[in-house]
Amino acid sequence: MAEVLIPAVENVSLEGNNGKTPEEDDIVDPWTVTSKADSGVDYDKLIKRFGCSHIDNDLVKRLEKVAGKPVHPLIRRGIFFSHRDLHLLLNMVESGKKFYLYTGRGPSSDSMHLGHLVPFIVTKWLQEAFDVPLVIQLTDDEKTLWKDLTIEQSMKMAHENAKDIIAIGFDVNKTFIFANLDYMGRCPAFYQNVIRIQKCVTFNQVKGIFGFGDSDVIGKIGFPAAQAAPAFSTTFPFIFGDNKLPVLIPCAIDQDPYFRMTRDVSPRLGFPKPALIHSSFFPALQGAKTKMSASEANSAVFLTDTAKQIKTKINKHAFSGGRPTLEEHRELGGNPDIDVSYQLLRFFHEDDDELERLRLAYIKGELLSGEIKKIAIEILQPIVAAHQERRKLVSDEILKQFMTPRKLNYEVV
Amino acid sequence: MAEVLIPAVENVSLEGNNGKTPEEDDIVDPWTVTSKADSGVDYDKLIKRFGCSHIDNDLVKRLEKVAGKPVHPLIRRGIFFSHRDLHLLLNMVESGKKFYLYTGRGPSSDSMHLGHLVPFIVTKWLQEAFDVPLVIQLTDDEKTLWKDLTIEQSMKMAHENAKDIIAIGFDVNKTFIFANLDYMGRCPAFYQNVIRIQKCVTFNQVKGIFGFGDSDVIGKIGFPAAQAAPAFSTTFPFIFGDNKLPVLIPCAIDQDPYFRMTRDVSPRLGFPKPALIHSSFFPALQGAKTKMSASEANSAVFLTDTAKQIKTKINKHAFSGGRPTLEEHRELGGNPDIDVSYQLLRFFHEDDDELERLRLAYIKGELLSGEIKKIAIEILQPIVAAHQERRKLVSDEILKQFMTPRKLNYEVV
Repeated sequence: MAEVLIPAVENVSLEGNNGKTPEEDDIVDPWTVTSKADSGVDYDKLIKRFGCSHIDNDLVKRLEKVAGKPVHPLIRRGIFFSHRDLHLLLNMVESGKKFYLYTGRGPSSDSMHLGHLVPFIVTKWLQEAFDVPLVIQLTDDEKTLWKDLTIEQSMKMAHENAKDIIAIGFDVNKTFIFANLDYMGRCPAFYQNVIRIQKCVTFNQVKGIFGFGDSDVIGKIGFPAAQAAPAFSTTFPFIFGDNKLPVLIPCAIDQDPYFRMTRDVSPRLGFPKPALIHSSFFPALQGAKTKMSASEANSAVFLTDTAKQIKTKINKHAFSGGRPTLEEHRELGGNPDIDVSYQLLRFFHEDDDELERLRLAYIKGELLSGEIKKIAIEILQPIVAAHQERRKLVSDEILKQFMTPRKLNYEVV
Repeated sequence: MAEVLIPAVENVSLEGNNGKTPEEDDIVDPWTVTSKADSGVDYDKLIKRFGCSHIDNDLVKRLEKVAGKPVHPLIRRGIFFSHRDLHLLLNMVESGKKFYLYTGRGPSSDSMHLGHLVPFIVTKWLQEAFDVPLVIQLTDDEKTLWKDLTIEQSMKMAHENAKDIIAIGFDVNKTFIFANLDYMGRCPAFYQNVIRIQKCVTFNQVKGIFGFGDSDVIGKIGFPAAQAAPAFSTTFPFIFGDNKLPVLIPCAIDQDPYFRMTRDVSPRLGFPKPALIHSSFFPALQGAKTKMSASEANSAVFLTDTAKQIKTKINKHAFSGGRPTLEEHRELGGNPDIDVSYQLLRFFHEDDDELERLRLAYIKGELLSGEIKKIAIEILQPIVAAHQERRKLVSDEILKQFMTPRKLNYEVV
């Protein structure tokens, strides 16, 4: 169990670069996602800049073969578009080695929005496809450090968000949810791994990866280790004992800097590098130049919104790829790539054929902006309503079960 | 309980300066203590540089009055020579307000040496004089970050050191001992206070206070908050509830930078600034240019040394303030200020009158170097032997009692 003692080395080769490069139009880091293009971030460029890999058709086919079932639409449609070492992970699965899933969320509001569901939906699909343990981190410490929030406010938000996550339908016997401000004080192994990681990473490195500066508070500078630690299975001794298991991390691509850092540290602590699959961003209603944000009420469809609020928000705010006049639209057609209502359907419409039919009809001008908004509203209203019904059933008792450190229903070796 | 939300401000006025000033001969910071003078660090200059205050005769008298008994010889002899806000603390005691004591140690070796006893001896005197709760921190996280030590090695050393501390004679009903790598994972309030502190301090500030640089690992940069947190009583909810009690911190002066930082943060988190009393350094056997160090075996009398080892070490290594020849010594006399054997007696001889007699006899040349070494050996041998006897009685069970978070025998309000 003792790690190899290697002093922290400066300027070790890190995979990929800082998301902030002045010559690029897109800014992508854990705190900022903006693009100058109406169609949003250029993901091809981002893959190149970050040094990750496309999820291509061959990989999708291989994933389906190993999983033994069709992939989730969010993967099939390219919303999960990028990965690190997914092939390696599938090799291990095929050779009978166990792994676990790790994902998370920064709780910056009492209510989550539709976009927050995306990584969790695919995580759930992966958990069911591979039948593996799942750990979910709520970084309430991060939120108190970055936002104008007290410890108490962040912890409350973490609990509210955990209830939304549970409502997605995770299995309590296979899933551990934890909030850092609580769990760090309940399991010495977590802090010990944080210190192991913090011993391997210099300020120069986090400056390069995250763009931290001398005026940043020391909490921010140390925080990346708290997000890295759950990628080391010994952070959860009650689940994994002292076994060093591989991990797969589904997350939005803006979280990749944390795991580039983690992958750099892993071998030095005797762990396999985490594998990742990355999702693209869920657009703000105002358009894909920014992502949907819980702190911008009008940019987001919240999981607490009523059917009427959803209708009003989409009708009023959802950026349209349609033409200025009916005549022009009928003649020239709309642009689904920048139309937020169509993009929402790409995330949430279940029927591939129907989605393609809508896309073509919109391009041809047969489908109008108002009509595609109406379809988006009708798809989203029951999804949000059903979520609200499930969330009502998540009692404080159930929350406590999910958040109690305990053995899960797995033999890990 | 919610802290006031004030964003971290750069370049806020900090009390005193960084211990490292190139124009000074003495270097004093938590990791280095060296002086070019045989008599050791110039404490008058240090007080000026750090911005703390002398413990003068008036303060000693006042301390005796409030305590209702003579001060400990280590205070009376000026070994505890400096303070911050001790008058304020005594005002509070006189007005009936409660406080607590906080001290600690960085466990960098299995065995402690004589010098390590000094802050604990005075802490014990203060605890008994004022009958107050005491918390003792072992910074095993610091040691793993700064030294070539694994987490496991540091934790083991923390436990060994805790047994030595217990053997000094602390009361289990009034004392809580904790090691960071364990306690951080047993009490969420500790991590929460660490984050509160880390939100108030920028990298620029720790750079100025501790001399950290861009190539330092992020664990070092964040660590000062872990040493600061126990100065906030809410770090120990099982002892103090949510009461914000004043604290007095006895420590060696090299630890002052941590508490300058802490004092800067305290009012912003709604806490009183900690009061401090500072000890001078326990000299290395080779002389007061450096302090006694557990990592330099020949510089130190360990608490595990046999009577014979103590005799050999002092005879062989203890720097002498005597003259090169017997004749010169008889004629010109020795210099007790640089004579390590005399300095050891200053720390450990119980009889003030006898100590003064020895000093004068040495100055006059009546007492020879070999003779003062012999006296030092005869004083230290039984002190170390008695410590070893008491330490044998410290079982793992007793250690566990001291290190279990629990209510102490105090009503705090």
